[in-house]
Amino acid sequence: MSDERPEPGTVRPGGRTAKTREAVLRAAGDALAEDGFDRLDLAEIARRAGVGKTTVYRRWGTVPGLVADLLNEMAADSLPRTETGSLLGDLTAQARLVQSTLSDPRQGPLFKALITAASCDPQTADALHRFYDTRTEEWAPCVTAAIERGEIPAGTSPTELIRAVSAPLYYRLLITGDPIDGAAADRAAQAAVTAAKAGAFA
Amino acid sequence: MSDERPEPGTVRPGGRTAKTREAVLRAAGDALAEDGFDRLDLAEIARRAGVGKTTVYRRWGTVPGLVADLLNEMAADSLPRTETGSLLGDLTAQARLVQSTLSDPRQGPLFKALITAASCDPQTADALHRFYDTRTEEWAPCVTAAIERGEIPAGTSPTELIRAVSAPLYYRLLITGDPIDGAAADRAAQAAVTAAKAGAFA
Repeated sequence: MSDERPEPGTVRPGGRTAKTREAVLRAAGDALAEDGFDRLDLAEIARRAGVGKTTVYRRWGTVPGLVADLLNEMAADSLPRTETGSLLGDLTAQARLVQSTLSDPRQGPLFKALITAASCDPQTADALHRFYDTRTEEWAPCVTAAIERGEIPAGTSPTELIRAVSAPLYYRLLITGDPIDGAAADRAAQAAVTAAKAGAFA
Repeated sequence: MSDERPEPGTVRPGGRTAKTREAVLRAAGDALAEDGFDRLDLAEIARRAGVGKTTVYRRWGTVPGLVADLLNEMAADSLPRTETGSLLGDLTAQARLVQSTLSDPRQGPLFKALITAASCDPQTADALHRFYDTRTEEWAPCVTAAIERGEIPAGTSPTELIRAVSAPLYYRLLITGDPIDGAAADRAAQAAVTAAKAGAFA
């Protein structure tokens, strides 16, 4: 496998460089999910990915550089919003998506490790903020559609409302360790929609 | 300074052992707030506290053991609830207390480091959960009083409601990095109380 870093635009998507990136990011995600952020090691990730150490060091340089690239890929690959025709339906779907992600045996520990990494390094924090900005932007049209349907007051902040749905589920993941179940997801959506209808996010 | 670990009950509160503990926990909190969890080192904490390394290793053993003891002390010293006569008043006071803690230049980074430490170590996670259980129990009577006054439905879960107030503020600290200001605190309390009145936490 070549250690040359190609010029942008010189390698077709799905080519050898893309496959290397995919293997390394997959290995980084596995290592984060299994061992946590504090034991992440570029040489070990290269070994897991079946890629030369030099390739990993040359392309990503540092652990924060690699974690930031993983977050960029996760943002690019993240799932589209659900549109059900009602705000409660839409935000329940959002809450259920967050719930199934955070309670997944690989994804839950991975997100915990990514958030931990972000609190130890500014470059990772920037990448984490961009990831969540992307997710918020994806779901924001559900809020603007609800405003247009007259379900919630004009001037409701899509960002505040979308984040109010996610916050109780992340609180379980990071603070209390309580199970992140469907009931918790439905309650998070119901509470946020009720508050939004009363103008709490306007 | 003695390296003997005294039998329980043989040293009066405020004695030499208590002073050593206070100095070491203060130094551990300072180190966590300044440098983060990933650079915590028992020898450096002993130096900051002006205490022999052997004392620190013998009494606390490991970084997770020391961080757990710091969380125990924080739980024992944590502030009493505010009672204003209305649920919105009480939970706005709770939100403002969380907000002033998380936006404080020492306390904010300290809490971030403690939560990070908990996601890397099960002993620290247990101590973190006990700390937040203590805080939730302290504020729960505000919810039961509101049920007795008829402000919110009987069967409202104090735990769910108290945590719903805190969650959006911790989401800012750990996920988005947005400022944790008074407006965010007031909105968190208002949204949680509105949802509670509609039965979202029953």
